[in-house]
Amino acid sequence: MQLTAREIAGRVGGTLVGDPDLLVTGLNSLEHAGANDLSFMRDSRFAARLEESRAGAAFVPEGYVANGKTCIQVAQPDAAFAVLLAIREQEIRIHPKGIHPQAEIAPSARLGKGCAVDAFARVAEDAVLGDGVILYSGVYIGRGVNIGPQTIVYPNACIREYVTVGGGCIIHANVSIGSDGFGFVALPDGRRHKIPQVGTVEIGDDVEIGANTAVDRATVGVTRIGKGTKIDNLVQIGHNVTIGEHCTISGACALAGSASIGNRVTMGGQSGMAGHIHIGDDCIIGGGSGVTGSLAPGSIVQGTPAIDQKLNQRVWLSFKRLPEVLKRLRQIEQRLDRMEKP
Amino acid sequence: MQLTAREIAGRVGGTLVGDPDLLVTGLNSLEHAGANDLSFMRDSRFAARLEESRAGAAFVPEGYVANGKTCIQVAQPDAAFAVLLAIREQEIRIHPKGIHPQAEIAPSARLGKGCAVDAFARVAEDAVLGDGVILYSGVYIGRGVNIGPQTIVYPNACIREYVTVGGGCIIHANVSIGSDGFGFVALPDGRRHKIPQVGTVEIGDDVEIGANTAVDRATVGVTRIGKGTKIDNLVQIGHNVTIGEHCTISGACALAGSASIGNRVTMGGQSGMAGHIHIGDDCIIGGGSGVTGSLAPGSIVQGTPAIDQKLNQRVWLSFKRLPEVLKRLRQIEQRLDRMEKP
Amino acid sequence: MQLTAREIAGRVGGTLVGDPDLLVTGLNSLEHAGANDLSFMRDSRFAARLEESRAGAAFVPEGYVANGKTCIQVAQPDAAFAVLLAIREQEIRIHPKGIHPQAEIAPSARLGKGCAVDAFARVAEDAVLGDGVILYSGVYIGRGVNIGPQTIVYPNACIREYVTVGGGCIIHANVSIGSDGFGFVALPDGRRHKIPQVGTVEIGDDVEIGANTAVDRATVGVTRIGKGTKIDNLVQIGHNVTIGEHCTISGACALAGSASIGNRVTMGGQSGMAGHIHIGDDCIIGGGSGVTGSLAPGSIVQGTPAIDQKLNQRVWLSFKRLPEVLKRLRQIEQRLDRMEKP
Repeated sequence: MQLTAREIAGRVGGTLVGDPDLLVTGLNSLEHAGANDLSFMRDSRFAARLEESRAGAAFVPEGYVANGKTCIQVAQPDAAFAVLLAIREQEIRIHPKGIHPQAEIAPSARLGKGCAVDAFARVAEDAVLGDGVILYSGVYIGRGVNIGPQTIVYPNACIREYVTVGGGCIIHANVSIGSDGFGFVALPDGRRHKIPQVGTVEIGDDVEIGANTAVDRATVGVTRIGKGTKIDNLVQIGHNVTIGEHCTISGACALAGSASIGNRVTMGGQSGMAGHIHIGDDCIIGGGSGVTGSLAPGSIVQGTPAIDQKLNQRVWLSFKRLPEVLKRLRQIEQRLDRMEKP
Repeated sequence: MQLTAREIAGRVGGTLVGDPDLLVTGLNSLEHAGANDLSFMRDSRFAARLEESRAGAAFVPEGYVANGKTCIQVAQPDAAFAVLLAIREQEIRIHPKGIHPQAEIAPSARLGKGCAVDAFARVAEDAVLGDGVILYSGVYIGRGVNIGPQTIVYPNACIREYVTVGGGCIIHANVSIGSDGFGFVALPDGRRHKIPQVGTVEIGDDVEIGANTAVDRATVGVTRIGKGTKIDNLVQIGHNVTIGEHCTISGACALAGSASIGNRVTMGGQSGMAGHIHIGDDCIIGGGSGVTGSLAPGSIVQGTPAIDQKLNQRVWLSFKRLPEVLKRLRQIEQRLDRMEKP
Repeated sequence: MQLTAREIAGRVGGTLVGDPDLLVTGLNSLEHAGANDLSFMRDSRFAARLEESRAGAAFVPEGYVANGKTCIQVAQPDAAFAVLLAIREQEIRIHPKGIHPQAEIAPSARLGKGCAVDAFARVAEDAVLGDGVILYSGVYIGRGVNIGPQTIVYPNACIREYVTVGGGCIIHANVSIGSDGFGFVALPDGRRHKIPQVGTVEIGDDVEIGANTAVDRATVGVTRIGKGTKIDNLVQIGHNVTIGEHCTISGACALAGSASIGNRVTMGGQSGMAGHIHIGDDCIIGGGSGVTGSLAPGSIVQGTPAIDQKLNQRVWLSFKRLPEVLKRLRQIEQRLDRMEKP
């Protein structure tokens, strides 16, 4: 990266305050940035960190001026920084190109223009890849899978038969999409008889699915992930789950079968959800929580079982005082005993 | 699928009440079924759902008759529905056939009749595959592995050296079986010295292992999974764990090293188990629970640390009242103070 | 394995008490060992188990003599047993050798002496493998990755572009290293805009990473794992996490973005850590705990949110008595009511 502050301000439509000729060669956090690095300050609560930083330049909120630093004022500093990260990404992330001779593509599969399929990727019969789809090495695309344009699938991910993935999606390494849901009939003798899972998975546009995450196919019908939803690593999504649009699901979460969540829901890391419940739009579920019942839109919950976050906080403050509570109870009872004595 | 109600009743040995010529072309839940779909009602508690459903036909318990619907009475409606799902599965799930020229099989490996090995699957020296074993693309079968007949291994699963897998098993995508257990000697200077893991894994017949699950090999001896046990996605099974027969282990569970569980044990999602404890037959462990001690057969537990489920429920109802408890304690103490005043 | 007790004592520098000609053909736990097996007793608390064992020989602490058993006295019996396990491992673990004709290695990649690359492994442009690196089948090594000598990468693991892995490391099956961190700008309309992740991952020497674990690359800068650290299966390590040296992180743990932990930290299974907190050296985090704040060196914590382990234990003992607490409160209030009556 070799851009002047003036060029950068131009790219993001920001207002430059400071040295327009400052050469920016790197991007970094305020903590680690040096004299030729660009960083960003999300809002003025972080002003002290910016002032202490050795960053040569920074995106700052509109109207903010930092002592002795070249500032580029923008409406949303983190979004502007993301634009620069995308420029850097184009420099260093070089995807596979073309169809590698060691890729194995069924004759009945149809590939759009400009697709790339690296060595040892396998595309089964009747799969359809939109324009510009990129399959890294070791990817498996099952029979009849449909993938929208510009979607990237990283190494060794598996997308099984008849699954639909939208355009502009990012599927990370070792993801499993469309494996059988976990369904069994309990027989009277204690054995479990498999319920064949003949449904599918439909994933909207601009969805990102993190490494080693598993999304099961439906028993019948569809396991659905709405457009724009972002899912982190090692997340378990059971059969017939429905996830709305623009949700954020952090690492190591688990959604049991037939759970449904609305739009713009946020799940903190390692949280979980029982099956067959509904989470309304815009709910926020704290990290490590276990949600056992349906939630109204906009609920903010924490704990296992998850309850209103503020109540949960109050309760936990009391919780640590439990041994004290028992001691005070004993003392009170002794006082009462003494008083009741004739 | 194109079957009349009469044909379906014949397949499952049920009693038809309604239109024997109704053509069934799909299978679906009561909620989503249409006029040519078959659904099922598990028991009469769900009668209202069946009546409101647009399903043309349904499996119902013996003796039950629904208004205006074609019903097929059977002893276990969900089991009958599973029979139909299996028919549908045969229509749409077309496994690889034969040995793909791009598969790589060691000359000393022995394959039974009718095995299928897709492109980029690797079978190492001395591995033995029973009749009809199916290996999808990218599967790794290590040296000396033994797999029973009719077992299916989905893409990119890894079964390492000398592991034994029974017949009729289903190993899902990106599963890792036989990786080294997690064992170290703590040296006096704080370093951890690896304990080589030279044991193995033995998996019984009819076991299903979900996507991205990991089953470690034993330090010495065997990590064992009994026949008929079903394991969901993203489950961690440590070295020297012993799991009995016909257990059901839901997604994102973790069993620490040398834990042992009996037969027909059920673990809810995201639950965990400490090492070196024993869980008796028929125990049920609630979702999100952490079991820290051994359990007698038939125990039903919940919470972290897991306690009797009913006690846990009572305790959690009290739990939310903790701030109230502290307030009442203060009030009581004030009343006592006033009374004790001379 | 065919070694006399005398030979074994020589290998570990121990003192033999008993039959020097006893032939040891296997290694096992005290519980499962037979007459020609060697086992070990960590310390004299397990003396009864040793006496009851059918093991023919055992490593024991210095000075200890067992009735009728051939004992080899050593300073650290488990460490001596690990030496024997390593001998056994060499007999049975036969790694791939040489470059398989079905491996696909970019011309610009550089391989040290004695590397092995099995079929269907893919090494991208400019990758550098040190001497003796072993890549199993289906492994993906991205552009510009640097791997130190003698590191082993098991089947279907993915190490993405520009990641650095030290020497003597063990990367297990289906691991994902260097996937994009989970970072998004929340737009005013509720959509999430991806923050490109252009940092990397640096892993020190002698690190072990368990099956299906995911280690994300940094947004900018480095996700770092210090030398000698051991990570179990299915662990989620977010972007910009820093892990010190000689840590032990058990299965199914999750570390959120920018968390940092010191040296020799131990995390029990299924525990988690919030982002942007710091855990001091030598902390111990109990299994299933959720750490929500920074910890001083040497802290021992348990629970969610994690608190001092001893306090947590006391509190949980009280916790089960909550229904009783409420009952006693009611009784006290009734007694007070009666007393206050005129």
